[in-house]
Amino acid sequence: MADNKISAVVAYAPAEPGKIDLRYESLTFTRKDPGPKEVLVNMLAVGICHSDIVVGGAPDGMMGAYPKVLGHEGAGRVQAVGSDVTSVRVGDPVLLSYTYCGSCDLCTDDGPYYCQEFLGMNVACIDKVWKGEKGTEVGGKFFGQSSFANLSMVDENSIVNVKGLVDDDEMLKKCSPLGCGLMTGSGAVVNTAAAKPSDVVLVTGLGAVGLGAIMAAKIQGCRAILAVDRVPSRLDMAKQLGATHTIDTNHLDITQDSYSADLAGEVKALIEDGKINFALETTGALPIINACIKSLSKRGKLIQIGIPIPFPTSIIPLDFQDFFGGTKQIEINYLGDCVAKDHVPKMIQWYNEGKFPFDKLIKFYPAKDVAQALEDMKTDVIKPVLVH
Amino acid sequence: MADNKISAVVAYAPAEPGKIDLRYESLTFTRKDPGPKEVLVNMLAVGICHSDIVVGGAPDGMMGAYPKVLGHEGAGRVQAVGSDVTSVRVGDPVLLSYTYCGSCDLCTDDGPYYCQEFLGMNVACIDKVWKGEKGTEVGGKFFGQSSFANLSMVDENSIVNVKGLVDDDEMLKKCSPLGCGLMTGSGAVVNTAAAKPSDVVLVTGLGAVGLGAIMAAKIQGCRAILAVDRVPSRLDMAKQLGATHTIDTNHLDITQDSYSADLAGEVKALIEDGKINFALETTGALPIINACIKSLSKRGKLIQIGIPIPFPTSIIPLDFQDFFGGTKQIEINYLGDCVAKDHVPKMIQWYNEGKFPFDKLIKFYPAKDVAQALEDMKTDVIKPVLVH
Repeated sequence: MADNKISAVVAYAPAEPGKIDLRYESLTFTRKDPGPKEVLVNMLAVGICHSDIVVGGAPDGMMGAYPKVLGHEGAGRVQAVGSDVTSVRVGDPVLLSYTYCGSCDLCTDDGPYYCQEFLGMNVACIDKVWKGEKGTEVGGKFFGQSSFANLSMVDENSIVNVKGLVDDDEMLKKCSPLGCGLMTGSGAVVNTAAAKPSDVVLVTGLGAVGLGAIMAAKIQGCRAILAVDRVPSRLDMAKQLGATHTIDTNHLDITQDSYSADLAGEVKALIEDGKINFALETTGALPIINACIKSLSKRGKLIQIGIPIPFPTSIIPLDFQDFFGGTKQIEINYLGDCVAKDHVPKMIQWYNEGKFPFDKLIKFYPAKDVAQALEDMKTDVIKPVLVH
Repeated sequence: MADNKISAVVAYAPAEPGKIDLRYESLTFTRKDPGPKEVLVNMLAVGICHSDIVVGGAPDGMMGAYPKVLGHEGAGRVQAVGSDVTSVRVGDPVLLSYTYCGSCDLCTDDGPYYCQEFLGMNVACIDKVWKGEKGTEVGGKFFGQSSFANLSMVDENSIVNVKGLVDDDEMLKKCSPLGCGLMTGSGAVVNTAAAKPSDVVLVTGLGAVGLGAIMAAKIQGCRAILAVDRVPSRLDMAKQLGATHTIDTNHLDITQDSYSADLAGEVKALIEDGKINFALETTGALPIINACIKSLSKRGKLIQIGIPIPFPTSIIPLDFQDFFGGTKQIEINYLGDCVAKDHVPKMIQWYNEGKFPFDKLIKFYPAKDVAQALEDMKTDVIKPVLVH
């Protein structure tokens, strides 16, 4: 590092909850060299994920202190490696995902995506990797990577080495979103649901997670794939990617008590035998969560992916009698039960075979235009990617 | 059948919901001979299960029409077989369990305990097997068996042939409860939870289901087994059977909003690292269900066995944020995911090895004393068995 200066999109404490405050600034590293299990990554691009917005909108202290650098769908090239790093070398192309401790009971028994230390290691940004111009400490290591910076200190556990798979920098930039949203959606279908051709899959919310789920359900050959959203262009995209039926929720009033039952009724009416085996819920909106539960047929499973809103408490009035009679199931899903080192290469292979055209969802923005990217994400742009 | 007369405990429509009306009467068969897949069973004994009481307390029409003959933990000997019956012969000792269609997608893919036709075939008592003295039609085939009658027409699918395993009539009577409650509880631990020695298991409600779960958790070698009830003698029994910790809920007021959090706090305080992997809930009481959910540690699973009360709707205020952050799971469980033909012999083997002393839970009553048996079941008697 010549002058130690980098540029980054820095998140400051929101003036009010949910009002994310991102600023494109210069930072300097607090230490020059990677620790034993760290890797310095020259970031080329980073996808923006809804979780960046949720975390960046949380009040100061709830999910760690501000200022901090978000970003957890990074793509780049290795610039330096720590003494104990074995999985990458200087110059290797890498895609970045979540980090984990690797030693707790859940890492061992359930998978690293449920690591006991997950929130602390991925969200809190405890490690003060940088300083701002006035000397303010800036938290890094968001998902072990903080890839909204153009040069970042990354946990080796967050790294997927794609040397030999993705050697071209343009393709590497395009692949940046594979480390979170698209992995989560497709993994939830392939791993968590293990959806079969006889299954009907309902997907609510058509961001990158939902559309990743739809592409994966098509790959699995599911007999029906139902897509729910309120943005017409996203419903169109879902159809292009494999949805067999779409429901535009614009005509329903989410403030009404009958919303969940009404939406469930519309969903069930689409399938002749009424069987909905899996609901993959990505919005986190309680009335939609309840609609999913009501839609499920006997032994159906809700796979909840979207973070419930609002924080910090979200009480859902669950009709337990209906739930019991239907012998239904609810499972919370993190990251599609994916080990990134296994699932990212799988998605790249699907892409190469023409089965996972995730590039249709991407729009590139210069990193300094992050505000515009967030604005566009509210409507038609599904996966904005910041280019450093 | 010489004179075609039998005696049975007949359930009449309750004067008010929950007020079960059972009468010991004489009935006559509406048809003499078993159909192709039916078996006429000379009942020796039948366990009383909480489900008999729930169904018998339901208003007329909600779960089929009255009068009907309940009883679904029968034990007896085969008196006649239908033309297509292959699994038993006249004179064979049999234990009885649930029935199922055997041909739906859930019977095939998930297991017969989740049969699409489960409620209709097991609960509705549509088949009018008998007539009362005044000619009133009386429903049979409760769980394919209606074993509160001393001679009953039974679905072959409900039958477990125990010839060679249980040849003595006294032992056969003792084994009658194996077909439902004890199977459900032990199966939920062994099959549904697949509990391991590293797991902590919480069991709420210490009837035959809960105590069956406790015995099975001990067999699985679980590192801690927590038992919750409000009857001291049942807590003592849980300790005898393998519970490592007991919680008497008498000092908590279930009508208070804080009940669930308070009970969960007491449960978690018992385990040094706070890890509760599975909650097996058998009471169906919403505040206890919520306490179980709150007690679970990260990735913990609620296995709900008790039918939620009250009917017909039970809204539970689920704290979805806590549930999501803990990546918890809820699964409804019927019959411990047990195929009776496999699990009943397993329990008998455990019993013979001294690991499943279910006989400690049993008290015998003459069938005509059913009212006394129900009364005693409210306190100290865990598994009353009616002897025909």
